[in-house]
Amino acid sequence: MSSAKSHFDQPRLNELFDDLNATLKDFIRSHQVTYKEFHQALAFLGEVGEKGETPLLFDVFLESTVDLVNNSERGGTATAVEGPFYLPGMPELKSPCVVPHRANEPGDVLFFSGTVRATDGKALPGAMVDFWQADAEGAYSHFNIPQEKAPFNLRARVKADDHGRFEIQTWVPSSYEIPKGGPTGALLKALGRHAWRPAHLHALVQHPGCEDLMTQIFLQGDQWIDSDVVGAVKESLVAGMQKHEDAAEISKRGLKGPFYTLEFDFVLPRGMQKAA
Amino acid sequence: MSSAKSHFDQPRLNELFDDLNATLKDFIRSHQVTYKEFHQALAFLGEVGEKGETPLLFDVFLESTVDLVNNSERGGTATAVEGPFYLPGMPELKSPCVVPHRANEPGDVLFFSGTVRATDGKALPGAMVDFWQADAEGAYSHFNIPQEKAPFNLRARVKADDHGRFEIQTWVPSSYEIPKGGPTGALLKALGRHAWRPAHLHALVQHPGCEDLMTQIFLQGDQWIDSDVVGAVKESLVAGMQKHEDAAEISKRGLKGPFYTLEFDFVLPRGMQKAA
Repeated sequence: MSSAKSHFDQPRLNELFDDLNATLKDFIRSHQVTYKEFHQALAFLGEVGEKGETPLLFDVFLESTVDLVNNSERGGTATAVEGPFYLPGMPELKSPCVVPHRANEPGDVLFFSGTVRATDGKALPGAMVDFWQADAEGAYSHFNIPQEKAPFNLRARVKADDHGRFEIQTWVPSSYEIPKGGPTGALLKALGRHAWRPAHLHALVQHPGCEDLMTQIFLQGDQWIDSDVVGAVKESLVAGMQKHEDAAEISKRGLKGPFYTLEFDFVLPRGMQKAA
Repeated sequence: MSSAKSHFDQPRLNELFDDLNATLKDFIRSHQVTYKEFHQALAFLGEVGEKGETPLLFDVFLESTVDLVNNSERGGTATAVEGPFYLPGMPELKSPCVVPHRANEPGDVLFFSGTVRATDGKALPGAMVDFWQADAEGAYSHFNIPQEKAPFNLRARVKADDHGRFEIQTWVPSSYEIPKGGPTGALLKALGRHAWRPAHLHALVQHPGCEDLMTQIFLQGDQWIDSDVVGAVKESLVAGMQKHEDAAEISKRGLKGPFYTLEFDFVLPRGMQKAA
């Protein structure tokens, strides 16, 4: 991008900008912001820009509000923020499938399954489930794990079957802290807040004739579920895993130890609107 | 700087940040900000950070409000924003003096003079006037003109005489546009606003036992005086120049052509507070 002109449309730009500027001036007046504080805020924002943390800062503190404003009235499964870790170009697999993983992928195996349906109850055969998650150590492939070491690790574009069913073999994700080394992390620390996100699975679910669904499934019992730093948790998106320790079940799945299952149905509103 | 911790003091940080965050969430809700708009704003702010324009953006749109909030109750000469072009380490001169300039300095000679007094009316002998300005083409030395070509051009630290008087020979400044090549300029253009500042002289006036005075003197009649892009103009800071065309006066000053004079007294409140 090279100009603000291309970012905004008139007259909405003038409306939004003029009111935002007036709102910030009111804030300065009502809090009697000092010159020292103004310069401190500028130094902070300058560092945010320099370190490339503008998306991180705004995702942490504001994106969940944008999600609520735009999506609270739509039907079907609740939405959740996209976050910064989606990658286009993931391998396309057909359900049932195993996501790309390392030979020594750490943690416990998880079978994530469900049905994709429309709000009228009808299954959506061939629905696409874009799926991505952190690994058992809280790391995202291509971001925290170099791409060449594990291309598209724990990521896939999964096509539901003729009954709208999907089953994805993956590994149980871990909760993790957002990047703490830069100014966003320093701000959280100064505010006395932690930087943790509860463990979750990301999904972007799409089917022709339905609205896209951008969401996250959270794992029940996670210690950060009530204090997600990003504020993305919604009660209806919290799901419980089942642990399976029976030797026959383990053997039937071709595994060597206990595994987990998680069942969650995605429900898409009828319509053509794009979520993002 | 390396952490937000050093930028702010508790509990003021929590008060300011929490209310700012709540204010921005209210803004998103009341304007029903869309995901597209949120991402456009992020792209814009990311570009601002990348191009190093964070101080410029905030100086243009918010600094004059910080000035009003902090300085409207003090006595003496009205304050004005510092702007981004102050330089420490300017040569120290004694009044009367000629500021550093190029052999072929463009434009008309200006004698800027006055008395530095306290709000009780008493002159302040030896008061320091830090003085800087754009040249007749709207360029600031070290910023728009490379330092090695004209070190501290049209900048000086001038010591008032035993009667608090100062007289500075300089050159009439021009109005100018703030940098337009980056995202701040693109935003102004998209908003349908111009980027001009009316011609002005900057001064930071200091004397022991008085509050510092950070201000700007604006030249009466400038076409941008009522629409300064930075919003820094205050009526009491607008002053008229006198043109002198009499041959004897010109000769007495050792000049070759007409010149201007501008008389303006600086009045400092008693006290020890620092302005910036």
